[in-house]
Order: sequence, then C-alpha cells, then structure tokens
Amino acid sequence: MEILKCINSRRSVRNFSKKDVSETDMDDILMAAVRAPNAGNIQEWRFIVVRKRETMEMLAEASFQQKVIASAAVVIISCADMDEIGKAYSSRGKDVYSLQDAAVTCQNLMLAVWDKGIGSCWVGSFDEKKVQNILVLPKNVRPLAIIPLGYPQGHREKQPRKSLEEVVHHEFY
Amino acid sequence: MEILKCINSRRSVRNFSKKDVSETDMDDILMAAVRAPNAGNIQEWRFIVVRKRETMEMLAEASFQQKVIASAAVVIISCADMDEIGKAYSSRGKDVYSLQDAAVTCQNLMLAVWDKGIGSCWVGSFDEKKVQNILVLPKNVRPLAIIPLGYPQGHREKQPRKSLEEVVHHEFY
Repeated sequence: MEILKCINSRRSVRNFSKKDVSETDMDDILMAAVRAPNAGNIQEWRFIVVRKRETMEMLAEASFQQKVIASAAVVIISCADMDEIGKAYSSRGKDVYSLQDAAVTCQNLMLAVWDKGIGSCWVGSFDEKKVQNILVLPKNVRPLAIIPLGYPQGHREKQPRKSLEEVVHHEFY
Repeated sequence: MEILKCINSRRSVRNFSKKDVSETDMDDILMAAVRAPNAGNIQEWRFIVVRKRETMEMLAEASFQQKVIASAAVVIISCADMDEIGKAYSSRGKDVYSLQDAAVTCQNLMLAVWDKGIGSCWVGSFDEKKVQNILVLPKNVRPLAIIPLGYPQGHREKQPRKSLEEVVHHEFY
C-alpha cells in the first residue's frame, strides 16, 4: 500500500476474526518495527510475541479487563531495556528516549500490519508490575505498550482529528 | 512509495541542500503526523514549524550545537500539551502517553517526508527550558523532539540493526 494511504486509512481495530497471522507476516511486521529511528542506534527495544490464549487472558486482566487483548491472534508487547538506554543516556534515556524509541517501533509495526490487511490497536493502560510478572521480564525491561493484532471483523470506526490550525503554530507558539 | 519500502529505505539525513520545502508538502506532512493513533484521541500533540534561520540557530545552540538544525529548510518541534493529557490520564498521561503520542506523530511525519524525497532526522538531546523560551511555549507545553528537514545532499548512511533474534522473545522473556 502507498505510504500516505496506509497512514491515512489506518484505524484502531478492536474486533478480530479467528483467522491466524502467519509467521512470515510476523517476520515482516517485526522487521518493519526495528527499522525505526532511535536514540544513538542503541536499540533498547524488546518485543514479546504472545500466541498462547492463557497468557493473553492474563494480559487482559493486567490491562483492567481490556478484552481485546484476549481476542487477538497475536499480542506484541513492546518493551525497553532500561539498563541499556540508561547506560548510554542516563535519566533522559530512561525517561524520554526509551518511550519514544519503543513508540516509533510500534507505529512502524502497526503500519506494516495494516498494509497486510491485518488490524491492531494500542493498549497503553495496564499494570506494569503485573505484565512484568506474566512475561517474566527482568527488572530492567519495562513494558511500554501492548499491541493485540488480528484480522479485522466488522466495521472499523474512523476517529476524527483536530484541524491542523488547532495544533500547528508557525515560528513560535 | 510502498509502505514497507518507505519504512525500510528511510535514513536519517543530516546534510541538506538549499532547496526549499513547499507549503503544500508541509501540509501533507503535518496531516500524516496527526493521523497517528494516540491515547483516548486527546491529541495533546502540538507542532511548531520554524523557517526563520535565526530561530533555527538558537535551537541549534539549545541542542548542544547540533548544527544540522540550523542547516535545515524547515524545523518542526514536536510538543505536547501536558495539561490536556494530564487532565485525561494524570501522571501516566504526562509521563508515558504524551511521549508516545508525540513520537508516533514524528514517525508518520518522517515517513511522509521520505516519501516526498525529503530527508529528516530526529534530535532528542536539547535543553527543554531553552527551547521553551525560544519558541515562547507556555509552561504546560513540553518540547519533545526537534525534526530538521530538507532535501538530502550527498550520501546517506545506512545504520545496521540488531537481528530479530536479539530483540524478539516468544511467549515470555
């Protein structure tokens, strides 16, 4: 799909069919993720790919019952190795770059997903400690986003956006 | 450009020619930015578009002399309205979502830029207070990334990436 069309047509998908996502597609999707720009090419990003229903159900519970997680074909948990980025950029690395770098991988990933006719959504609200326990993450690996994905089922709502005039300023605020 | 090609071929560009970036292209680029997914569709993102050389030079100084900023055709400063996201999601909004939401707009923006044959790079290291003063940002508007853009000049280096095996885990860490 053409890039602007992909960016503009992409929607958050929260209803998935039972169709599986192939390993080949997952490889393309993860390869797109790691092509993201990142601070100093440290690549502190880490991804956990979950296909086990039981784990998805635990993740849904840790995300304040966001059932969409348990109904996905695959769930990707975007994480950051805080030691790795902290070693390079200390507190700015941990508090800023780790979040930005992981977020950018997630957007690449969600665009690659959409290009394949697959849907996804971004879950940002979850209990980090619970997710760490479920995924057996070391203390230094922080979960930053949960992305359930699968083939869309039913209507996908289009969310309106503020006009550019409302959010863009020229030369200064 | 096809989406995966765009993601995979995009490079950070730090040498720009003198060619200008048109307003029409800027509109497309900013429209792509705001198509990003974001927490609760709050859209706390704000963008400052700078074309004045003098302001660029001040921004370069505030970014520890990163001259690339002063040599760009246009500089976009990605910001977040912390009051807006804080009202909706309190500390998680301010500490996590604001950074993620802005980062995702930046990636959309950088992909749209690349699609047009324009280059950009992500500057994350700067003195936030200085940037706030230069751009007359209100206290609640936090600058999160500086993106200089312009037509590429000369060779663009390709940065290697870790293999997927190094960063992807299955089912748990």
